Amino acid sequence: MNIALAQINVHVGNFDANLQKMLDYTRRAKEQGADIVVFPELATVGYPPRDFLEFDDFIERADQVVQQLAKAADGIAIIVGSPTRNPVVEGKDLYNSAYFLANGRVQQVQHKTLLPTYDIFDEYRYFEPASEWKVVRYQDKTIALLVCEDSWNVGNENPLYKINPTDRMLEQQPDLIINVSASPFAYDHAAERVRVLQANVERYNIPLYYVNHVGAQTEVLFDGGSLVLNAHGQVVDEMPYFEESLRIYNTEEVQEDSDGGGERERDKMTLIHDALVIGIRQYFGKLGFKRAILGLSGGIDSALVAVLAARALGADNLRCVLMPSQHSSDHSVNDARQLAQNLGCQYDIVPIESVYHSYTDLLQPHFFGQQEGLTEENLQARIRGMILMAFSNKFGNIVLNTSNKSEMAVGYGTLYGDMCGGLSVIGDVYKTECFELARFINRDGELIPDNIITKPPSAELKPDQLDSDSLPPYPELDAVLYQYIELHKSPQDIIEAGADPALVKKALRLVNINEFKRHQTAPVLRVSKKAFGMGRRFPIVAKYLS
Amino acid sequence: MNIALAQINVHVGNFDANLQKMLDYTRRAKEQGADIVVFPELATVGYPPRDFLEFDDFIERADQVVQQLAKAADGIAIIVGSPTRNPVVEGKDLYNSAYFLANGRVQQVQHKTLLPTYDIFDEYRYFEPASEWKVVRYQDKTIALLVCEDSWNVGNENPLYKINPTDRMLEQQPDLIINVSASPFAYDHAAERVRVLQANVERYNIPLYYVNHVGAQTEVLFDGGSLVLNAHGQVVDEMPYFEESLRIYNTEEVQEDSDGGGERERDKMTLIHDALVIGIRQYFGKLGFKRAILGLSGGIDSALVAVLAARALGADNLRCVLMPSQHSSDHSVNDARQLAQNLGCQYDIVPIESVYHSYTDLLQPHFFGQQEGLTEENLQARIRGMILMAFSNKFGNIVLNTSNKSEMAVGYGTLYGDMCGGLSVIGDVYKTECFELARFINRDGELIPDNIITKPPSAELKPDQLDSDSLPPYPELDAVLYQYIELHKSPQDIIEAGADPALVKKALRLVNINEFKRHQTAPVLRVSKKAFGMGRRFPIVAKYLS
Repeated sequence: MNIALAQINVHVGNFDANLQKMLDYTRRAKEQGADIVVFPELATVGYPPRDFLEFDDFIERADQVVQQLAKAADGIAIIVGSPTRNPVVEGKDLYNSAYFLANGRVQQVQHKTLLPTYDIFDEYRYFEPASEWKVVRYQDKTIALLVCEDSWNVGNENPLYKINPTDRMLEQQPDLIINVSASPFAYDHAAERVRVLQANVERYNIPLYYVNHVGAQTEVLFDGGSLVLNAHGQVVDEMPYFEESLRIYNTEEVQEDSDGGGERERDKMTLIHDALVIGIRQYFGKLGFKRAILGLSGGIDSALVAVLAARALGADNLRCVLMPSQHSSDHSVNDARQLAQNLGCQYDIVPIESVYHSYTDLLQPHFFGQQEGLTEENLQARIRGMILMAFSNKFGNIVLNTSNKSEMAVGYGTLYGDMCGGLSVIGDVYKTECFELARFINRDGELIPDNIITKPPSAELKPDQLDSDSLPPYPELDAVLYQYIELHKSPQDIIEAGADPALVKKALRLVNINEFKRHQTAPVLRVSKKAFGMGRRFPIVAKYLS
Repeated sequence: MNIALAQINVHVGNFDANLQKMLDYTRRAKEQGADIVVFPELATVGYPPRDFLEFDDFIERADQVVQQLAKAADGIAIIVGSPTRNPVVEGKDLYNSAYFLANGRVQQVQHKTLLPTYDIFDEYRYFEPASEWKVVRYQDKTIALLVCEDSWNVGNENPLYKINPTDRMLEQQPDLIINVSASPFAYDHAAERVRVLQANVERYNIPLYYVNHVGAQTEVLFDGGSLVLNAHGQVVDEMPYFEESLRIYNTEEVQEDSDGGGERERDKMTLIHDALVIGIRQYFGKLGFKRAILGLSGGIDSALVAVLAARALGADNLRCVLMPSQHSSDHSVNDARQLAQNLGCQYDIVPIESVYHSYTDLLQPHFFGQQEGLTEENLQARIRGMILMAFSNKFGNIVLNTSNKSEMAVGYGTLYGDMCGGLSVIGDVYKTECFELARFINRDGELIPDNIITKPPSAELKPDQLDSDSLPPYPELDAVLYQYIELHKSPQDIIEAGADPALVKKALRLVNINEFKRHQTAPVLRVSKKAFGMGRRFPIVAKYLS
């Protein structure tokens, strides 16, 4: 049997476009001799559709896509993920299902059993878990059809669920497992995915065909990396990262493959770089926008975002604005200008002093007798934000936010100022990783002026200011933040692991009291296993480690 | 037996304060002859604790509170909600539990079975459902101990769950049900709560004691309204709304009460008014802030927020800023000034023209040849936002956002401008409801100048501008929005219910394409069953009805 895995990029709620794409892939798979073509989880509606699932009309539109696909299942079978209605009055109203379509109609539907409800996942918000398991018999094969998380309870030290749907299918003696997935990218996730799927194959001794989404859905990125493993647990093939792809596998050849070696290399910076480029490109593309704008300060964060945006959208579609103040150093302006010239993008220089003084003149009678300080620093950041938003409104460019994860964590940024923008590009990249990424970008030549990478970080909001005046050195800070944010360690654990107690106390307090700022920021492209945004949910009003 | 219901206001993560409060209530209950004192769901940690639950240290702190309470359970038993660890490796790591404490130690723990995972609720994100049900035997009574949602699957046409925990306890012949809850306020929720609990009593024929939280947790408001129902289904008592309270009920007297009539009257505007006042007060109080600031435009929205803030914090703690531009009408400034004087709060007049011109001068070379329009309107709104934020930074006042629900729905507001602020006070109140609320506030005399209520709404961002230039009349718009947002109706259904098809198409499209703005706004005090914010989750990038 020839199985085609269609690793596609769909658009949430864009039913017509998603249908056309799947019809096109089905036609191509059939032309290439496939017996079955497999599309990812919830491919009709896009993943995650979130509360659109609560609208009957939305589900009906998904049903219509399935009906159209069923008609195309002629000479080829189609497996596709879509929501289905639960006919039983008790329980949630929907299932998250995999359809098996053949001979022009729906042959079988298998619901998802394990409903991820953690991090960015909210599946139990919408779906009832499966309580029946039935294999698909097609041609000479018996197929165990699973949906994403259904395979993820195996090979875990601390399994989240009490049952394994594959166990329930075993007595029906499946020849192979097909898993339709929506498994988001994180820079360390592809390796984890291989490990988990290998654990499944080891346990069940049957080959596994796994197809994933590719592309960006607002902040959630999908890398693809669809996998074929034979019954020996060897990775026969891993499909590309961050590209749509259609590949056809012959089940006998997969089984006979004894080399394995289908896995690709995974370099952290390559992955993050490619993920962010795709994230920007598809945020714009799926919203129907072409052009970006950002404030180029001469610092490393905005430099990185400019490079990534130029690569995602083309330098012609990027406009950089240099907004020096009385506190900006000459080298900042020069470095920023040099970068814009290296990229070949449009740039404007808009000095903010005149506007700044108009504010301080206006506010002087009200602020009489008060000390200058944070207010005036924030004013500068907010004037820059307003100028970018004015360009955005006037010319239709989306403002790219340039805050990094370390800043967002500790609240080292100005709400409505440097925290403004429609998309946070590097909000899931720690400052120390920003340096790594800049060096990665420059690995074949100096695109980002070296001075931007080597000079000490500064917000340049008051004379001779350095980040290190207010914050611990980034390597120490980031190490603490990683343990708290990604690993959920307690202060005691972080201190026992070697961190300075005062630093730990200060850093965790800053993270917790700055939830109000992060609440009001743009979606953050997610590249780690714990990004700020929809996958990390904290109350603004609380009193814990704060 | 005497049962004390302690309807308390706790603070998320503030373990010491929560413990002290519960010890104090326990002492008072004991002094008043109670045999048992009952605290709400997750009272040790506050509700909702959100992802703090994923930290071991947080759970340990909750355990310590329970241990301290157990010591105080001397001559009185204590029922209290707290998270507990799941000792079984399979399944989620925690339960949401009700402890029964007596004779100085933990006697029994009953886990919650039905885990709400919809709207603002994320319980399956953290908790494993109960799979064992055991009544509590204490003195001469057998008690079925339930946690909130455990009672909500009864009396529903479309039950969300397949089992009812009370059914599982029935064969152990409980004499009464005690339900510890965290059931958030919505203006139509108290009536629903009575209906559901009555359905339980009708089904099981045993009395029900129900204790709820009171107070605000960021955007989630709890009204209290704890209830005692006898086996005849009569409401023997309903505890106050929006106040902490301790009441003691004798089980024999409750059973003999044949009058019922314990329910309070529920006027929608009284409820919304009181909820918003509590919401503001506790947002500030629990964050440790005293003073608010807002921009007073002379329109109805900012007028309402000013009144509510003055009532929540005291007029001395409210500062209003009037920021007229060249487009502001004289009556706006006069009306705003009159309101500030009526309230007795500080106000400043800060005209924005000089700053506005400094921006247009600065940007003129870059915007040369472009038409004036939305950019210049947004500039004015953003200058006002920046001035408020400057006051906020300088004097430590939190900026109150004054957007209403209709505006937030259709994106009729400027990001970082009038959409700025730390708390959205009326973001869950439609414009038509704002008029009702203003009249309610003025019912005994003109606090809000009548002209503010009667003049046609205008953003005053260009000459002679009216909201009705860009938006349908609010009564029609709000009716459509309510059906889409609260009732989840499809466009077809809304049109069939009588709305203008063009208006429906436009309104729903505006709602969907403006998700990016709502993503970056302050938490919205929730007074309806579907507020913008954590209970309503949509992708920014999508193509559906848009």
